[in-house]
Amino acid sequence: MATAGKVIKCKAAVAWEPNKPLVIEEIEVAPPQANEVRIKIVATGVCHTDLYHLFEGKNKDGFPAVLGHEGGGIIESVGPGVTEFQPGDKVIPLFISQCGDCRFCKSPKTNQCEHGWAADRYDVMSSVDSRFTCRGKKILQFMGTSTFSEYTVMNQIAVAKIDPAAPLDKVCLLGCGVCTGYGAAVNTAQVEPGSTCAVFGLGAVGLAAVMGCYVAGAKRIIAIDINPEKFEKARVFGANEFVNPKDHNKPINEVLSEMTNGGVDYSLECCGNVGVMRSALEACVKGWGVAVIVGWTDMHDFAARPIQLIAGRTWKGSLFGGFKSKDGVPEMVKAYLNKKIKLDEFVTHNMTLAQVNNAIELMKHGKCIRTVLSVAPQ
Amino acid sequence: MATAGKVIKCKAAVAWEPNKPLVIEEIEVAPPQANEVRIKIVATGVCHTDLYHLFEGKNKDGFPAVLGHEGGGIIESVGPGVTEFQPGDKVIPLFISQCGDCRFCKSPKTNQCEHGWAADRYDVMSSVDSRFTCRGKKILQFMGTSTFSEYTVMNQIAVAKIDPAAPLDKVCLLGCGVCTGYGAAVNTAQVEPGSTCAVFGLGAVGLAAVMGCYVAGAKRIIAIDINPEKFEKARVFGANEFVNPKDHNKPINEVLSEMTNGGVDYSLECCGNVGVMRSALEACVKGWGVAVIVGWTDMHDFAARPIQLIAGRTWKGSLFGGFKSKDGVPEMVKAYLNKKIKLDEFVTHNMTLAQVNNAIELMKHGKCIRTVLSVAPQ
Repeated sequence: MATAGKVIKCKAAVAWEPNKPLVIEEIEVAPPQANEVRIKIVATGVCHTDLYHLFEGKNKDGFPAVLGHEGGGIIESVGPGVTEFQPGDKVIPLFISQCGDCRFCKSPKTNQCEHGWAADRYDVMSSVDSRFTCRGKKILQFMGTSTFSEYTVMNQIAVAKIDPAAPLDKVCLLGCGVCTGYGAAVNTAQVEPGSTCAVFGLGAVGLAAVMGCYVAGAKRIIAIDINPEKFEKARVFGANEFVNPKDHNKPINEVLSEMTNGGVDYSLECCGNVGVMRSALEACVKGWGVAVIVGWTDMHDFAARPIQLIAGRTWKGSLFGGFKSKDGVPEMVKAYLNKKIKLDEFVTHNMTLAQVNNAIELMKHGKCIRTVLSVAPQ
Repeated sequence: MATAGKVIKCKAAVAWEPNKPLVIEEIEVAPPQANEVRIKIVATGVCHTDLYHLFEGKNKDGFPAVLGHEGGGIIESVGPGVTEFQPGDKVIPLFISQCGDCRFCKSPKTNQCEHGWAADRYDVMSSVDSRFTCRGKKILQFMGTSTFSEYTVMNQIAVAKIDPAAPLDKVCLLGCGVCTGYGAAVNTAQVEPGSTCAVFGLGAVGLAAVMGCYVAGAKRIIAIDINPEKFEKARVFGANEFVNPKDHNKPINEVLSEMTNGGVDYSLECCGNVGVMRSALEACVKGWGVAVIVGWTDMHDFAARPIQLIAGRTWKGSLFGGFKSKDGVPEMVKAYLNKKIKLDEFVTHNMTLAQVNNAIELMKHGKCIRTVLSVAPQ
């Protein structure tokens, strides 16, 4: 392409500081260096983790940054040493890498990778190796991805090549929320056919967890939210029982325990609230109940009484649904194209990058499941 | 036997109230009722859980009681409907039952049993169905067992028949501490050959956990205690590295992380201290580290940051080492007779039931691993 090897000037939504609206700016995106690819972002979802960083992140070193980590795009050019990608390939940027060589990548037990930004930078959640500048300032890449930009640059260990038939304005959701929830059920909890599951929180991640439970063959899928407007959508993804904790004058774990003769087999916390994490553990049946923490928060401890685990429950957590990222995302794209999983039903709003602040407001007020922004023209 | 069907008068150590020495009393032990057996206790270990109840238990309804739950004995007589046991059988009383019929017993995933005292009475930790009286008062059976008595009565679902060749003054330790620690490593953590393990707390349970790691083929077994006098014994059971947290001016989880390139594969908390539980989790490697809570406390919450689990660690707990009690204990007795596990090395002191308060004092001050009391003459 004519732009290969050159700095690209393009539009991006820049977060200059916490708690302020994003600003659409013209930024400069440097060419990819060794083992890097430059990607034209066609579409991106807006995820709670973007909001978390913008509004609740305590670390001011994480700004200025380009947020966004749930994108789909097309390779524009590749840096030296890249053989796996060619210009024109459809790809999904990954916020956790899969180098294939480290002890984590070589183990079937985990999707951690020793070489990703996440290995060292959970606190900052942005890459020091940004290729972005704007008005003479270096702009950080949030979660290494920065999909709220027409172009971004990624290391090839954090990019998944996907089926060229995939619609980017749908499969972009596999870059975070849908894989995170679905995989938490299928890979981390390893939900068994015939089992009873409870999903706490019915945002995109929770709905994807419901879908994971359904595809895994769960018999009872109890969807829990304090906003009963979410229940209709949860039914679409496979939930067959619905509980609003506000309808009960006893703790939700007791309600679930009574509904299920002692507790559920699997619970998935998709809120990022440590109180809900405790309830989700206590809602599990003793003996073999598995509670999975899917929602993100790093501001408080989660806690419980030791007997909860000693009685046979297991507490786990899930990052990106336990999917090894480069392997898992293309498989999930195939599953969508083969109609084994749903994606279209997550998209409640379509907007443009210029409307990103509107999308953020919708999400802040729980008025959407996912807004997909069109970014650069395809 | 001449005593069958009659009340037996015998010696027992009665805990009349919390925080007071036990009193050797003559008690009456009623004949076994339907599905029950009466057992002559030949030997019993003294376990921290006995002390916990006596000195830290908050529930005054748990008194008066006969403590002791790590015993070995001989069937004296059986109640109506008992076909599995005959007078003269060598047995070990079990503080968790295995009815064989409930959903827990039928599942390979757990050693919980719906019909044991533990199903309802974690708070009280003593049976309402005691067969003991003393001076006209009903005396509770602590953990359903009450092995600090020359005779006790148990439901047959909580009694394991063992090899007649087994020495009761050794295999009694399989009634609690040794199975608890060994099984936590082998059954709950499922320690893999070649792995790196950390065991926190080197009492009998911790030493048994060390033995479990060793038998499972762990390569590095790091034994941790603030009392370095315990290290020599830990070496006997298979530990090959030793850490005293007091020797370091940084948190123990950081010390272990540096020793092991990021953390251990398995950690076993054998102290019953919620601060140590947190350290044991944080000492695990991300991606696949498994932390098992083995020590008992019900007075505080354990806690950690969500990222600890989201990064791929698993938090579990272990009760009686995950052994299905009636199945597991006879197998452990065989393992001892076949020299596959050690028991003799746990016994640091031998005393009589009359000396039970001396044994309790030794344990309170960390001066023993296990004291075995001889109870009724064999």
